[in-house]
Amino acid sequence: MEIAKTIELTKKFVAAARKRDKTIGLVPTMGALHIGHISLIRAARRQTDYVVVSIFVNPTQFGPAEDFDKYPRPFDEDLQICREQGVDLVFAPDAKEMYPTKNITWVNVEKLTETLCGRTRPGHFRGVTTVCAKLFNIVRPDVAFFGQKDAQQAVVIKRMVTDLNMPLKIQVCPTVREEDGLAVSSRNKYLSESERKDASLLYKSLQKAKQLIGTGVTNPEQIIAQMRKILAQSTLLETEYIEIVEPETLEPLNPVKGPALIALAVRCGSVRLIDNILVDATSD
Amino acid sequence: MEIAKTIELTKKFVAAARKRDKTIGLVPTMGALHIGHISLIRAARRQTDYVVVSIFVNPTQFGPAEDFDKYPRPFDEDLQICREQGVDLVFAPDAKEMYPTKNITWVNVEKLTETLCGRTRPGHFRGVTTVCAKLFNIVRPDVAFFGQKDAQQAVVIKRMVTDLNMPLKIQVCPTVREEDGLAVSSRNKYLSESERKDASLLYKSLQKAKQLIGTGVTNPEQIIAQMRKILAQSTLLETEYIEIVEPETLEPLNPVKGPALIALAVRCGSVRLIDNILVDATSD
Repeated sequence: MEIAKTIELTKKFVAAARKRDKTIGLVPTMGALHIGHISLIRAARRQTDYVVVSIFVNPTQFGPAEDFDKYPRPFDEDLQICREQGVDLVFAPDAKEMYPTKNITWVNVEKLTETLCGRTRPGHFRGVTTVCAKLFNIVRPDVAFFGQKDAQQAVVIKRMVTDLNMPLKIQVCPTVREEDGLAVSSRNKYLSESERKDASLLYKSLQKAKQLIGTGVTNPEQIIAQMRKILAQSTLLETEYIEIVEPETLEPLNPVKGPALIALAVRCGSVRLIDNILVDATSD
Repeated sequence: MEIAKTIELTKKFVAAARKRDKTIGLVPTMGALHIGHISLIRAARRQTDYVVVSIFVNPTQFGPAEDFDKYPRPFDEDLQICREQGVDLVFAPDAKEMYPTKNITWVNVEKLTETLCGRTRPGHFRGVTTVCAKLFNIVRPDVAFFGQKDAQQAVVIKRMVTDLNMPLKIQVCPTVREEDGLAVSSRNKYLSESERKDASLLYKSLQKAKQLIGTGVTNPEQIIAQMRKILAQSTLLETEYIEIVEPETLEPLNPVKGPALIALAVRCGSVRLIDNILVDATSD
């Protein structure tokens, strides 16, 4: 496995692979790799010949009050995981390499970034799309792999790629969950024991929504009220939003019908958790 | 010469050229080709193997009160010029091909787009950078060619390419001028005979600035006052701005020293003309 800390070296390795007619897969990460990332790496290995994992805690997607400094950076463990998973190249630049001067160029996807998590994280998605545009231009992958757990991020990036005619495919892979349903996340390790236990209510509330829709309930307020009831079983959880939206436009669905994304963000102590499921509310 | 109206066909032609190990040059234009464009095409032919000219009057870079509908579209003459100049591929999409849905993704370069022409043309440069990002992603050129006449545009695009790590080089080519010094532009044909005559004062004022700087004048106000005096010789000219700025940051220079961009925009009847020169105000 190659490890490149510079853009130049990364381009050299990728160009050499391309020269050997390899297709290129990119798994963009902020490190702190877990089984969610591993599932993306495995998908990349199945679908492409040469797998690049980028590890970069991107400062431009963190708000001033967010956890950039505290974000975990277990670099050696990450490399070990990449080695075990047969990754070909790890691209691990520092901030100076990615932003040598103050960045003044932004890629922004309007509308889709103004709802859900965009409401409480202004500038977050602009940071994500900008760094992804940079990574795509550096690595020039045929396919880039993202997790469904960050549903809004995946929708925004897909739209960016379409609107700007970026020459790659975005592959969204299923959310990986713990046994009790909690979506795997680098931030889960910050949960206390009791918080960790109650965090399973997020997935339970999503399952409840799915069940209600399955029985023909189409009133979003009714569904969301039932979800809130489940989350209210824990005093440790504070709901930021629950929304039922069209999966591509992210516009609220009322009534709930056709394909639907049920998404929520919940504060659990100092940790902000997000989760979602896709359901098909088409009645027969 | 190939002509492609679709993105798909364009990609096919370019991929075939790339397969034959050709380097790709792109000259992005809005058509109405003149000797300025021809000089770009010639530079592209000298520096790259396979020359693509895009012809697309990009709606997103025109303001609501600007001349999008009236912008000249002499397509057959443009093709003839491209043929004569040995262009390999003309990419001539319509607006529906470039913007199949309402565009919500924008590439924006801050600061550099807020000065000079950016003050009176809000959204203009955002339209330019966005369509160039799209064209670069479609054609994937090794080099793209722009004219120094649109100095701010060139600076903005260069910065976008650097900030987003776009894998191409931007080549800026010298302004082509008429015999009396007027910078060649597609909009010159809209000038009446007397307007056309007086339009030569723009270049005269730039030359005056250069001369003053050559004699050691470093006070920008003094230089600009002398330029205004020259432009005031015609009652048909109305100055929008005259600025002396650092050529990469576009920040006003005071005193004028080192490399300097002297740029102006002047209304001449219904036509808005821009021009500029680069000077080196380094004193010995």
